[in-house]
Amino acid sequence: MINPLHDNLYYPSTGTPKHRLPTPALLIDLPLLEFNLSLMSGYFLNKSVKLRPHFKTHKCPIIARKQMERGAIGITCAKLSEAEVLMNAGISNVLIANQVVDPAKISRLATLAGFCNIIVAVDDLDNLLKIGEAAHKAGNTIQVVIEVDVGLQRSGVQPGKPALSLAKEASKLKGIYFSGLLGYEGFTMFEVDRGKRHQNVQHAMNALVSTAELIRQEGIPVEIVSAGGTGTYDMTGEFSGITELEAGSYVFMDTKYNQLGLDFKQALSLLGTVVSVQRPERCIIDAGMKVLTTDNGMPYLIKPDGLKLERLNEEHGIVGVNTEKAYPEVGMCVEIIPSHACTTVNLHDRYYIIQDDQLVDVWEISGRGKSQ
Amino acid sequence: MINPLHDNLYYPSTGTPKHRLPTPALLIDLPLLEFNLSLMSGYFLNKSVKLRPHFKTHKCPIIARKQMERGAIGITCAKLSEAEVLMNAGISNVLIANQVVDPAKISRLATLAGFCNIIVAVDDLDNLLKIGEAAHKAGNTIQVVIEVDVGLQRSGVQPGKPALSLAKEASKLKGIYFSGLLGYEGFTMFEVDRGKRHQNVQHAMNALVSTAELIRQEGIPVEIVSAGGTGTYDMTGEFSGITELEAGSYVFMDTKYNQLGLDFKQALSLLGTVVSVQRPERCIIDAGMKVLTTDNGMPYLIKPDGLKLERLNEEHGIVGVNTEKAYPEVGMCVEIIPSHACTTVNLHDRYYIIQDDQLVDVWEISGRGKSQ
Repeated sequence: MINPLHDNLYYPSTGTPKHRLPTPALLIDLPLLEFNLSLMSGYFLNKSVKLRPHFKTHKCPIIARKQMERGAIGITCAKLSEAEVLMNAGISNVLIANQVVDPAKISRLATLAGFCNIIVAVDDLDNLLKIGEAAHKAGNTIQVVIEVDVGLQRSGVQPGKPALSLAKEASKLKGIYFSGLLGYEGFTMFEVDRGKRHQNVQHAMNALVSTAELIRQEGIPVEIVSAGGTGTYDMTGEFSGITELEAGSYVFMDTKYNQLGLDFKQALSLLGTVVSVQRPERCIIDAGMKVLTTDNGMPYLIKPDGLKLERLNEEHGIVGVNTEKAYPEVGMCVEIIPSHACTTVNLHDRYYIIQDDQLVDVWEISGRGKSQ
Repeated sequence: MINPLHDNLYYPSTGTPKHRLPTPALLIDLPLLEFNLSLMSGYFLNKSVKLRPHFKTHKCPIIARKQMERGAIGITCAKLSEAEVLMNAGISNVLIANQVVDPAKISRLATLAGFCNIIVAVDDLDNLLKIGEAAHKAGNTIQVVIEVDVGLQRSGVQPGKPALSLAKEASKLKGIYFSGLLGYEGFTMFEVDRGKRHQNVQHAMNALVSTAELIRQEGIPVEIVSAGGTGTYDMTGEFSGITELEAGSYVFMDTKYNQLGLDFKQALSLLGTVVSVQRPERCIIDAGMKVLTTDNGMPYLIKPDGLKLERLNEEHGIVGVNTEKAYPEVGMCVEIIPSHACTTVNLHDRYYIIQDDQLVDVWEISGRGKSQ
C-alpha cells in the first residue's frame, strides 16, 4: 500500500477541478499570468530600456524562466538567498537590489561571483571595501551598483556628489566592477493620480540619471541605471537614461495595485473553504493570517457573491454574509484576491496552476522564506 | 571543492557566536524555552487536568517531542497537514482543534485514523456524517470532539441542547467514536485584568462543563473536555470538569502575551542586521514584513538600547535612532521580540538555538506553511 504520510498526496492530479483542490490553496490563473508576462515583455520589446523583473513577488524559478524566455535581461531580487535559488535554477544573471553586509554572506557572494553574473547594491564605503576585499581574496570580481536615494528616504546615498564619491571608490577597487546605479521611486508607486505619479517619477529619475551623467563626466562608465516598479513601468520605462526596469508585481497584481487602473490582469487568488456556518449572517473559512496578509488592507473576497471577508484570525477567516444574496454551506469554496501579492506568496509553498477551472500544474515557490 | 550552492552552507557550525549568524534569523534561547516547558508541565504534574499543548505556535516536532517527554498526553494542532507532520515525527496522539471538511482531506483523515490516534473537531451534522462514512469505508474509526462556542462566536455549536443533539448523533454513527467536547475561550485570552479574565473563564467553562454533564446524563460518556490557552492555563486548568488544556504560546511568549504578567519567559527573538545608515536619526535593518508580523502591533526592538523599530517595509525594517544613546553602524546586530510568535514562526524555515550567546543547534520548523 502507499504510505499515507507521503507528502506527494498533497499534489492533486492534473485535471482536478478547481473546487476540489485542498484548501487553502494559492491559485495562478495561467492564461492571465501569461497575458501579464507578454504585456510587460511586449512593452519593452523595442525599447532601449530593458526588463529585469523582480523575483520577490513570485519567488518561483518557473516564472523567472518564463520572464527570461520573453526577453528579460536577468532577474532582480532582494536577498542573497533568493539569488542562490535563481542560480540553482540556472538563471545566472541576477541583481540583488539590496545591501549584503554580514561577513558570512559577503564571503558567499564572493564565491558565487566566480560562477555567475551577480550584481549587488551598495550605499556604504566600508561595506564596499569589505566586498572588494572578499572578492579579491576569492580571486573573483563582484559587480556593484550604487544605490541612490531618489526620494524614498530608506537606503541609498544621496544623488549627485555623494553617489559620485562612492562610484569613484568602486571604480578603483580591486575585486569590484562598478556597473552603475540603482534607484527605487517607491514613494510614488501607489500614487493613484497618474499625472502626479508621472511628475514624481520625472523628479526622481532626473536625480538618478543626472547622477549617472555626473559620474560619466569623471570618465567612469555607467552601464546600468536601474529603477522602476509595476506602478511606474510606462513612465520610468520611457525615461531617457534609464537602462533597466525592476518591476515585480505585474505578474500577479493585487487589490492595492488594481487601484492604479493598469492593464495587467488579476492572476493570483486564494481558494478557501467554508468550514463552519453557525449563524446566518456569518460564516468561517479555513483561511486566516497564516495564508493571507493584511499589510495592504483586508483581502477581497470575489466569489461567491454576497460574502465579504471581514476579519482574519490566525487559522480562520471571518466572513460576513449578505443573507439576501448568499446561503453559504459547509464545504463551499470561496475565492479571495490578496491585498498584497508579495507578502501573501511568502506564506505559501506552492502554486496551483489553473486553466479552464482545472488544475494543470503545481509549481514550487522555491524562494519562499529566503530572507537571508 | 564544495558546491557553493549547497543549502547546508546556511547552517552555521555549532559554537558560532550569535552575532555572526546569517540574518534575519529566528532565535530560541534554549534555557528559557526549557524553563517555559518545565514551568507548564510542572503545573499540570499532579492535576487531573492534563496538558495537550498546541503545535500552531512552534510548528516544530523537536519541541513537540520535548513536550511529550515532559508528560503531555498528546499534541493539539490546527490543520490536518500539521497533524501529518506530527505523525511523521512519531507523535501519534493528535487532536485537530478545527473542522476538516474538504472531501479529499476527510478521506485522508480516514486513512490516517488507521495508523494513529487522531481526534478531530466537528460542529456540523453533515460534516460528521461525511467523516463517519469515510471512516467506515476505510474500515477505521475516527474520534471526534464536538466544538462548542463558549463565547468566541466563531466556530462551534451552542452549549447545551445543540451540542447534546450533535453528540447523540456522533455516539450512534458507524466510523465515529464520540470522545467529548472542545471549547476555546479565546475572547478573554488577552484580557489584562486578571480578575475579569478569571470571571470570563468561569462563565465560559461553566457552559462547556455543564454541556458535558448534560450529555453524560443521556448515558453518553464524555472523556475529553478540552479548552484553554496560555492566558488562562491556571484558571481553565483549575476548573473542575476540564480534562485537558491546549495552550501553545507559553513556549515562546511575545509582546502581546507579555502584557499579562505571566511567569513564562521571552524565549523567541528575531536577529537582524543594520544594512544602511544614511541619516543619524534612522537606520535600516534587513528584517521586514517577510520575517516579522504586525497583526499584534509593531515588534519590539530590545537590543541595542536607543533603537526603536518604527515601520516595516517588505524587505526592510525602518528603525528610529535616539542619537543621544545609539550610534548604529552598518553590520551591527539588532534583536527584536515578535509581537505575535505564532504568525512570526510561520514565516521561518528554521530556528537557531542559542545558549550562552552561541549556536548550539538548528531545528527545522517542519510545520511551517502547513495550512491545509
